[in-house]
Amino acid sequence: MTLPDRPQQPDVRRSAAAAAAQAAAAGEGAVVPLAPTERFATRTAGMTASEIRALFAVASRPEVVSLAGGMPNLAALPLQSLAREVAELVDVDGMSALQYGSAQGVPQLREQICEVMREEGIEADPNDVVVTVGSQMALDLLTRIFVDPGDVVLAEGPSYVGALGSFAAYQARVVHVAMDEHGLVPELLHEALESLARRGIVPKFLYTIPNFHNPAGVTLAHERRPRILELCRRYGVMVVEDNPYGMLGFDGEVHPALRSYDPDVLYLGSFSKTFASGLRVGWALVPPLVRDRLVLAAESATLCPPSFTQMLVSRYLSHHDWRSQIKTFSENYRERRDAMLAALETYLPEGCTWNVPDGGFFVWLTVPEGVDTKAMLPRAVTARVAYASGTGFYADGFGSRQLRLSFCFPTPERITEGVRRLAAVLEAEMEVVRTFGTPVRPELTRGTQSPSPDTT
Amino acid sequence: MTLPDRPQQPDVRRSAAAAAAQAAAAGEGAVVPLAPTERFATRTAGMTASEIRALFAVASRPEVVSLAGGMPNLAALPLQSLAREVAELVDVDGMSALQYGSAQGVPQLREQICEVMREEGIEADPNDVVVTVGSQMALDLLTRIFVDPGDVVLAEGPSYVGALGSFAAYQARVVHVAMDEHGLVPELLHEALESLARRGIVPKFLYTIPNFHNPAGVTLAHERRPRILELCRRYGVMVVEDNPYGMLGFDGEVHPALRSYDPDVLYLGSFSKTFASGLRVGWALVPPLVRDRLVLAAESATLCPPSFTQMLVSRYLSHHDWRSQIKTFSENYRERRDAMLAALETYLPEGCTWNVPDGGFFVWLTVPEGVDTKAMLPRAVTARVAYASGTGFYADGFGSRQLRLSFCFPTPERITEGVRRLAAVLEAEMEVVRTFGTPVRPELTRGTQSPSPDTT
Repeated sequence: MTLPDRPQQPDVRRSAAAAAAQAAAAGEGAVVPLAPTERFATRTAGMTASEIRALFAVASRPEVVSLAGGMPNLAALPLQSLAREVAELVDVDGMSALQYGSAQGVPQLREQICEVMREEGIEADPNDVVVTVGSQMALDLLTRIFVDPGDVVLAEGPSYVGALGSFAAYQARVVHVAMDEHGLVPELLHEALESLARRGIVPKFLYTIPNFHNPAGVTLAHERRPRILELCRRYGVMVVEDNPYGMLGFDGEVHPALRSYDPDVLYLGSFSKTFASGLRVGWALVPPLVRDRLVLAAESATLCPPSFTQMLVSRYLSHHDWRSQIKTFSENYRERRDAMLAALETYLPEGCTWNVPDGGFFVWLTVPEGVDTKAMLPRAVTARVAYASGTGFYADGFGSRQLRLSFCFPTPERITEGVRRLAAVLEAEMEVVRTFGTPVRPELTRGTQSPSPDTT
Repeated sequence: MTLPDRPQQPDVRRSAAAAAAQAAAAGEGAVVPLAPTERFATRTAGMTASEIRALFAVASRPEVVSLAGGMPNLAALPLQSLAREVAELVDVDGMSALQYGSAQGVPQLREQICEVMREEGIEADPNDVVVTVGSQMALDLLTRIFVDPGDVVLAEGPSYVGALGSFAAYQARVVHVAMDEHGLVPELLHEALESLARRGIVPKFLYTIPNFHNPAGVTLAHERRPRILELCRRYGVMVVEDNPYGMLGFDGEVHPALRSYDPDVLYLGSFSKTFASGLRVGWALVPPLVRDRLVLAAESATLCPPSFTQMLVSRYLSHHDWRSQIKTFSENYRERRDAMLAALETYLPEGCTWNVPDGGFFVWLTVPEGVDTKAMLPRAVTARVAYASGTGFYADGFGSRQLRLSFCFPTPERITEGVRRLAAVLEAEMEVVRTFGTPVRPELTRGTQSPSPDTT
């Protein structure tokens, strides 16, 4: 297990500005103004544009089949009835919907969120729910209230790129724990906890996406869930469960949330995939002592989440059959998953492996040795197909033999065409590798420690 | 000038957890799990519930006249036409409005924001605008990208409570600079800059609310604006201009923004007071190099602001006469300001002083020596009137002889009744002071250094 270096401390960068100021005050001339870029906080060193984001501009050209993004497919939403709903919201409740609300979120919506979570076996008090601007905000704020610079956070390898962004912004050191086809591997988690403990390090929390993982597509086996919770409890490590896809299973099964086993789990939920991402309504369910800090942090982040979008979600949950809407979404995604799997079987060259997701948005693909998915990306986009290369999903540069394919947004026909194009690009890369040999890349030597979920 | 102590560093609190972990790894028994509260980041020490927020629950009882909150009065909004507008948004643009958008914000809205800022003399490129979830988020993220723990931030004394919250969350040390009836005093700013420079300290930025200040109600004199900018430039200090009330002047005059003098000023704007606070749409206008970091920070904070509310604001700006709507709002607020000033003249006892705001939401009141506005507050609420005591608007405990009165929300009749009740409470307090003498409170000795804008 490699542990990243501790982040730079602010004081080492302070000297130039301070010296100039002191010289000026001593009458040695005017202070030399610093450009704003020289005045950034130390933590900005960890803020870099994610590879995936950088790609979006190119990948969004219409001729490119984008298998890169994670945009939900909203075509099945009942727009006409939503238009009536939102007009009524303004007519009837406009004075509240257009006004500031509480930092914790609209009370009625918090009750309804508890009802939604009950589907996954969670019993919760609406007072412990904090509504946020997407669950990204909940994740960012939990990191804010728990992570000091240099603190260790455990996360699956690979992990959600937005989580890695927040961890970097607060100067956490991320230690990845590998998954297999049944999700996070308890034995490897144990090993990581033990190895850290020997060095006197207690990670602040384990960040995990148990269901239909982004980007790995795998789901944590039920029998592993209590074991992982027990391990974290034993080593004094909190668990942050991020569950945006949990209701989007393809066989109708809803997996029991980690939070349903243990009320100390910090649970993150979202309406972005089960209703509408453009409303940015997510939430955290946390124990009362954490909630109080989280609300304070939320207040300083945005004062309060938009009343308007919260009340729209609340009306939608009250007046629409949201369960059957989720079923419709899942069916659409299953159809797309099937198209992708069929195309992968048909077109992909020998030596590629991938998983079969039972829900969610993503397939995680491992390419033959010698092919570098990040280096290949520009050639793929030239061939009019885009994907997310694996390195963006690791904090440590691993993942260059992996890539993420999203089947959520394009039509099945476009997915098939996209995979066909990708296969041609891969063939060409492999031809080059065969001709010139496999380049030796240091991260590949770590492959046995971090098995990717390449379960075909 | 007092400079607060540097914040505690994380490492000093780490030992207990680390020792337990090491003991466990050495086979000396299981790790003792820590309660989540023992695992909070060092920065949470600065996160405390603002006095104003704590008060809202009590003050919102219907029998209490609340002169405490800063909720805009939305009664003049054209709800029927907004209901049609929002229904059409879903009908026509639903697939975009309900979908993820860019982290920087909807392009058309950013163009319209430039048009709005042109009213205050600002020439800006829509590419330099970053849309945020209220301008609070912009302020929080600017603090995130510029402030290391222990960095000094300059702010008017008193200052906006939400800004002080963000500064505390990032462990800034706030140095207040006093205002008089013409706003921030350039000579005192110079003094503070010089005194800090002698100690080798360059503040990260000056945070200022030039127009219709919250809470002080004063407006920065035009002739002071270039002087303040010049001083900050000379000492290498950035300027963050927060301008939520700038368009809400009572005599139709729009003051030129600091940003209109200097494109390096970091400008914060908001639709919360000129349209609808419940949509949470604000923005920052910043130079390109800052913008890039700000967008990255915004991405890790919320991925993107809600498309829905942004597109609703955009439609409102396109299809409604927003200038005349602002004029209507201003007239309502002027009427309420007049009611408050008349009531203050009529009812308040000798020895109270206050300012006459030319716009915005607030009157800042100084009470006679010996009266403590924070201690008085429970008695005021018992007498069914609420206000915000002055201490919440200072990072350093000053302000116990001041309080903020909001005239934005209640009807003129309720405002009059509220001031009448407040006057009675004040009379009773002063009677106690006359009987038992003035308690000596240390912060009062600093009064001459921090003149409050008590210009009657």
